[in-house]
Amino acid sequence: MSPIPGLHTVGLLGGGVIGGGWAARFLLNGVDVKMYDPDPEAPRKVGEVMANARRAMTKLYQPALPPEGTLTFVDSPEEAATDVQFVQESAPERMELKQMLLRRASAVAPADVVFGSSTSGLLPSMMQEGMTHPERLVVGHPFNPVYLMPLVEICGGALTSQATKDRAFDVYTAIGMRPLHLDVEIDGFVADRMMEALWREALWMINDGVATAQQIDDAIRFGPGLRWSFMGTLLIYRIAGGEAGMRHFMAQFGPSLQWPWSKLTDVPELTDELLDTLVGQSDAQAAGVGLRELEALRDDCLISVMKGLRGVGYGAGEVLEQFERQLFSRAVQPDVTHDLDQPLRLYEVTVPDEWVDYNGHMNDSRFFQVTSEAGDRIMRFIGVDDEYLTHSSYYTVESHMNFGAQAMAGDRLYATVQLLSHDTKRLHHFTSIHRADDDAVVATAEHLMLHVDTVAGKSSPASAELLANLDRLAAHHSQLPKPAHAGRFVGQPRA
Amino acid sequence: MSPIPGLHTVGLLGGGVIGGGWAARFLLNGVDVKMYDPDPEAPRKVGEVMANARRAMTKLYQPALPPEGTLTFVDSPEEAATDVQFVQESAPERMELKQMLLRRASAVAPADVVFGSSTSGLLPSMMQEGMTHPERLVVGHPFNPVYLMPLVEICGGALTSQATKDRAFDVYTAIGMRPLHLDVEIDGFVADRMMEALWREALWMINDGVATAQQIDDAIRFGPGLRWSFMGTLLIYRIAGGEAGMRHFMAQFGPSLQWPWSKLTDVPELTDELLDTLVGQSDAQAAGVGLRELEALRDDCLISVMKGLRGVGYGAGEVLEQFERQLFSRAVQPDVTHDLDQPLRLYEVTVPDEWVDYNGHMNDSRFFQVTSEAGDRIMRFIGVDDEYLTHSSYYTVESHMNFGAQAMAGDRLYATVQLLSHDTKRLHHFTSIHRADDDAVVATAEHLMLHVDTVAGKSSPASAELLANLDRLAAHHSQLPKPAHAGRFVGQPRA
Repeated sequence: MSPIPGLHTVGLLGGGVIGGGWAARFLLNGVDVKMYDPDPEAPRKVGEVMANARRAMTKLYQPALPPEGTLTFVDSPEEAATDVQFVQESAPERMELKQMLLRRASAVAPADVVFGSSTSGLLPSMMQEGMTHPERLVVGHPFNPVYLMPLVEICGGALTSQATKDRAFDVYTAIGMRPLHLDVEIDGFVADRMMEALWREALWMINDGVATAQQIDDAIRFGPGLRWSFMGTLLIYRIAGGEAGMRHFMAQFGPSLQWPWSKLTDVPELTDELLDTLVGQSDAQAAGVGLRELEALRDDCLISVMKGLRGVGYGAGEVLEQFERQLFSRAVQPDVTHDLDQPLRLYEVTVPDEWVDYNGHMNDSRFFQVTSEAGDRIMRFIGVDDEYLTHSSYYTVESHMNFGAQAMAGDRLYATVQLLSHDTKRLHHFTSIHRADDDAVVATAEHLMLHVDTVAGKSSPASAELLANLDRLAAHHSQLPKPAHAGRFVGQPRA
Repeated sequence: MSPIPGLHTVGLLGGGVIGGGWAARFLLNGVDVKMYDPDPEAPRKVGEVMANARRAMTKLYQPALPPEGTLTFVDSPEEAATDVQFVQESAPERMELKQMLLRRASAVAPADVVFGSSTSGLLPSMMQEGMTHPERLVVGHPFNPVYLMPLVEICGGALTSQATKDRAFDVYTAIGMRPLHLDVEIDGFVADRMMEALWREALWMINDGVATAQQIDDAIRFGPGLRWSFMGTLLIYRIAGGEAGMRHFMAQFGPSLQWPWSKLTDVPELTDELLDTLVGQSDAQAAGVGLRELEALRDDCLISVMKGLRGVGYGAGEVLEQFERQLFSRAVQPDVTHDLDQPLRLYEVTVPDEWVDYNGHMNDSRFFQVTSEAGDRIMRFIGVDDEYLTHSSYYTVESHMNFGAQAMAGDRLYATVQLLSHDTKRLHHFTSIHRADDDAVVATAEHLMLHVDTVAGKSSPASAELLANLDRLAAHHSQLPKPAHAGRFVGQPRA
């Protein structure tokens, strides 16, 4: 039973990469799918897309997805359009083929069943020909992989009704997409035209031996492509224009339209009228948000994209990772001497935006993450290195946290660690998280860790070297007062 | 004292947005800067860029940056090139102006001081004219904002030495950038040519009234722009070609070069030679990595970019955020009947790869994250909705965790929540995290939460409706046995 009101079953015409992607999006949102594709390989192909999509969508969304819908393969376009509330056509890009499928399916579907077409560039006015109730056909052009990419371009033909566009918008939104209404029917719609422009320039450069495929891709993904993931070319150029915005940008870069900066020389003439239209639309887009605010937004997005990619270790994320290692080795000199008569200051971090939750402050679990990082550092401090980790490690068995103050995005935090006790197998320590500004303690944590033989999968004594290091540290830390929050149970009255 | 060997002081010619960005990158990496710019406003302008950069770079990098270098404004290009180890020119895009600055500065700098030029499109062979030791001039073309964007295109002129290119590469890498060596000197280099192609197509669409600035930007940032942030157009198309790769893609989409999918119709002829070159370069780029692996990499990058942007709540991050709220409210249906005589099963998740740490199992902090999510669900369950969150919420004040078993990537987990006690301000509950496979408890958590008036910033009584719901739940849950691990302090012997 689909959790989306009014959308229990959809019919899909075509089960290639795009049709399979649609199947995945609907099924993983709990909607049943009837799929028509004459290719006997279609079930295998759709199955492969589904496997990718299950993995990816489960990773993407924090909340659990509903129970998967049911996928049924049917033997005709008519069956795919029977007892369904929406139909999406994703056949190969041949007009006659699409017209045939839409004609047959629309002959059996009730008048209120809307038909979306995944075409990348064919005109809906032509696809409508021959359909029963042609006003219900609209282009809903998705991007690969359909199960992850938010964009779907909605474009009506000459006969398409407004109700049809609205219904398509609602259906696509209900499965997590970002529909974009287009006003003018044009070959290639909007996104593919820009992809095509970039592609044509890239082909010229390969053709002329100016740059290789690898160089061209690197010039995108380490440069303008990073910005395009959150702001389009118009807003980016507006910001580049500074306080004076788009008019200033055009005064500076308008002439480049005539320069040999591209082999694509069919450029529009930069008339006063075009300039006024452009400036007016740019102002409307910025909606009164000032330059400084746009710059900060651009920077925050860039940071979050690069930090996100660091998790994967690819592209700009790999650059960031490598440079952080460089920064780290510049900062942590082997000759730094810690004062053993104090809790060890072992970890620092600036609170990133993504650690902030709906309460507007750092999520409680991120405090635990900071103390966990500090726990890793104390392990390293007593001599656990990469080699040691191949056979043994410490696992956390019990933890206690007290939360004293909020931390906000951008706050600089540092963690200090005090050894409370240890024996051959156990390591009991206490972390205080401080705000660097005023050294105030914002949270504390107490952890009990157990030394584990990770190959045998059971507890074991730590190495003699580790134990000697622990003894040396304990000789100092046992002189420190016991932290006020150590040894508490939850809800214990404060002393 | 700069932490970068052989790079203590750099000279900068020009202090606009780009020159200021270079100043920020060098200074925040601990390198001193001598800046020449005849504009009396330059110190103010550079100061503004520095303020942006300090904020952004501190957020971007996990390790602390070194102490800031010193910025000195000097009165001539000669002074800027004295006692420095590198010079970067970022004057306005006028050839004579750049030539004059480079001529004067190079007359005083020792022969081993390399000069980089930030030009977006002027040819280095022309800029070299008149320089003392012209072989040390190279284009180092950065992107705005220079203090965040990794890409810098390195392009030599006719006289540029290989040693010069290598030195520029090392200097840019040392301040966190991703240099890209170009082999052919061409107007606009590589990245700007692609930006220009996209820009020309966008201007055509605005000119022809096909789409507005906002629509064009949305078509990029919710669609292809997301992919361009980690893979260029060549690799993306290779993946779109499926198992057969680029040759198959061209068979399918090569003809579109002749279609009216762009107003930029000066397309290269798709000869066999061009096709072979393209396919060969695409194969080299993929370096033997197969389709499935590339698809997984693409998906992981897309996920990480969208999750990163969710932290900012902009673009695709806003779409994700809104859809997760939708998923959430679909999952917690008011009419779903929970068995109140049992702990409430409120949250499920599949352990994603990135939750696994160096021990090969789910990191301890991620268990806390799961219980935190479960805590959010119990709040929702007793009636905290988006409206309520605009003025009040529950904050965690104390937590205790016990870890019983490991969880691995791909494990399906669910969390049950038992209400232990409550009063008008406090909410005390206990979470058990189970493995769905065998219902085994892998970890437990006890949380004490405090109801807070988030506007006044202090504790406050919950609403009557919430309290009534809590009373109703407590009537059932008070009959349940107290969990074995509730009320423990860390290290307490097990009963």
